[in-house]
Amino acid sequence: MSDVFLQHMNLQNNLLLRAAKGEQVERTPVWVMRQAGRVLPEYRATRARAGSFITLVRTPELACEVTLQPVDILGVDAAIIFSDILVIPEAMGLPYEMDEGKGPRFPNTIKTKEDLARLSTTEIEGKLNYVAEALKLTKQELNGRVPLIGFAGAPFTLFCYMIEGQGSKEFAKARRMMRENPELAHALLSAISDATISYLKMQIASGADLIQLFDSWAGVLGPDSYREFSLPYINRILSAIPEVPRTVFAKGAWYAIEDFANSPCETIGLDWTIQPELARKWAGAKTVQGNLDPSVLYGDFASIKKATREMLQKFGTQKHIANLGHGVYPDISPDNLKCFIDNIKEYPNEK
Amino acid sequence: MSDVFLQHMNLQNNLLLRAAKGEQVERTPVWVMRQAGRVLPEYRATRARAGSFITLVRTPELACEVTLQPVDILGVDAAIIFSDILVIPEAMGLPYEMDEGKGPRFPNTIKTKEDLARLSTTEIEGKLNYVAEALKLTKQELNGRVPLIGFAGAPFTLFCYMIEGQGSKEFAKARRMMRENPELAHALLSAISDATISYLKMQIASGADLIQLFDSWAGVLGPDSYREFSLPYINRILSAIPEVPRTVFAKGAWYAIEDFANSPCETIGLDWTIQPELARKWAGAKTVQGNLDPSVLYGDFASIKKATREMLQKFGTQKHIANLGHGVYPDISPDNLKCFIDNIKEYPNEK
Repeated sequence: MSDVFLQHMNLQNNLLLRAAKGEQVERTPVWVMRQAGRVLPEYRATRARAGSFITLVRTPELACEVTLQPVDILGVDAAIIFSDILVIPEAMGLPYEMDEGKGPRFPNTIKTKEDLARLSTTEIEGKLNYVAEALKLTKQELNGRVPLIGFAGAPFTLFCYMIEGQGSKEFAKARRMMRENPELAHALLSAISDATISYLKMQIASGADLIQLFDSWAGVLGPDSYREFSLPYINRILSAIPEVPRTVFAKGAWYAIEDFANSPCETIGLDWTIQPELARKWAGAKTVQGNLDPSVLYGDFASIKKATREMLQKFGTQKHIANLGHGVYPDISPDNLKCFIDNIKEYPNEK
Repeated sequence: MSDVFLQHMNLQNNLLLRAAKGEQVERTPVWVMRQAGRVLPEYRATRARAGSFITLVRTPELACEVTLQPVDILGVDAAIIFSDILVIPEAMGLPYEMDEGKGPRFPNTIKTKEDLARLSTTEIEGKLNYVAEALKLTKQELNGRVPLIGFAGAPFTLFCYMIEGQGSKEFAKARRMMRENPELAHALLSAISDATISYLKMQIASGADLIQLFDSWAGVLGPDSYREFSLPYINRILSAIPEVPRTVFAKGAWYAIEDFANSPCETIGLDWTIQPELARKWAGAKTVQGNLDPSVLYGDFASIKKATREMLQKFGTQKHIANLGHGVYPDISPDNLKCFIDNIKEYPNEK
């Protein structure tokens, strides 16, 4: 029995891991994408002390502090390490800046095979040691209360940023390279995958109990492109980390859910456009995660309760991890977020 | 027999209208969203003469000129009047500016019921008379060569702009209003629908042979919200214009295709994420339109030909209007766009 598996057994609340593995649970576990973030005043205070987003990411004590906040304040069933998917491009040699309110920006992007040749896929662990330290510290501070989720961006999503240099509605530059120079695109996607595997192995060694891959820009691909430029790299990464339960969340890629049903993952994340019944049909035997429309949390408690319960009813009590269908919006009231979480935790008692 | 129907009969090429109505066609008709636009150097020349995008929209002779360009240069089976979906908010009292390279921006937005009360839904025809003039002029210049498509934005998409003031990834402000103040949201959506009906009736009276509604931001809603905040208004508009074939294109709203199968429209537009087989299943007896991934046109002629033929094969020869799955990207070579169009027109001869 591996150390990681023993770790799972030692958790006081291992609902998330049991649900991920398809084991019987007493109630549906819940956590929230972006639960450690701007929605909490406590986060904004720590962020202000850090001075910048990137300093917050790079300082293990501060990253640990904001990772723990939602566990203490909101009562979620898992912590997710506070970090950023863009630390991988950075560790590969493409630094980024975070423009407040505007999102990330890469001063340099990949345009040619010479640009690619300058990237590195080695010594990722050393360059991202601050993430390992943050995980270890958080693991210690959590003291077995709830599992700790590690994560990375899916290669296609990181590829988009590395070509485009910033967020975009359609990522036309990235998709142009896929068509004009597919060899270069595949070489870059492969390099990102290698770096990500090293990174995730380090996260697991540092205490991550479950890994989630975020393919945030999956929705700009169609089924054929997804099968060529995203899915193979996701599957390569997932295959390399069989030690822990694995979740893949590809926003907008409803068309890939049937593919993920055959991927080496335990859980499929769902955005809010996907009807639970259809998700169940497409996801087969896998656990599903999601998928309340984050904008529901702008409503009053009664409407949040109604929508949350409808979601729970449609997914059923097993093989489901409750979450929003995307990250919580920063201008949501923490009380409304807590209303969502509480309704999930109270659900079985009132049925 | 109505005048409009006689107009259809008098067209030299009425493939589009016959395909829309589910009648037998000799070959699949083709047109391209944003065919009149930046992809053509001839457009850029006219645009430069106009001085600004908004002047181009408002000057019938210039709008007519760019509407005809793709018919002459690319050989498409339909013209679509050059205009902008945002002329409706403007005619209602919310003017917009077009920042070159950044998209539209509304200096004033709707925040309260007082803001809504200041909007007008009357005299739309008078305020948008320049569109009627552009349609009449284009109809005359086309001289029956191909049908002329009119269009409008779907109410939800216009609502997004009127609340948010500009494009956005998630339109959180608009979705916030839907949750916090659904009465105000519905009142605004209803007002937009009324204005749109007057506008489209005017377009039909001025020569539009087919009407397409663009719900460009549909993808940020989920199935339940779509059925509450978008679909009823789309259906209200479609019901009001039974004189011509009607197309609804809701980008990202794959989950609504089964609903559109019961809408008062003839054709359902498809974005490029939707597999043809699934679209056929969901669309029932309706004609479908689309849906090549626009990024395919970044590739070489051989790859464009291959993808185009695969698409045609999957949709079959009837009840299909070929198009891209979204507007053509401005940096696509006109030769590559023509390669797509030619391959569709040549398809049946080589089978």
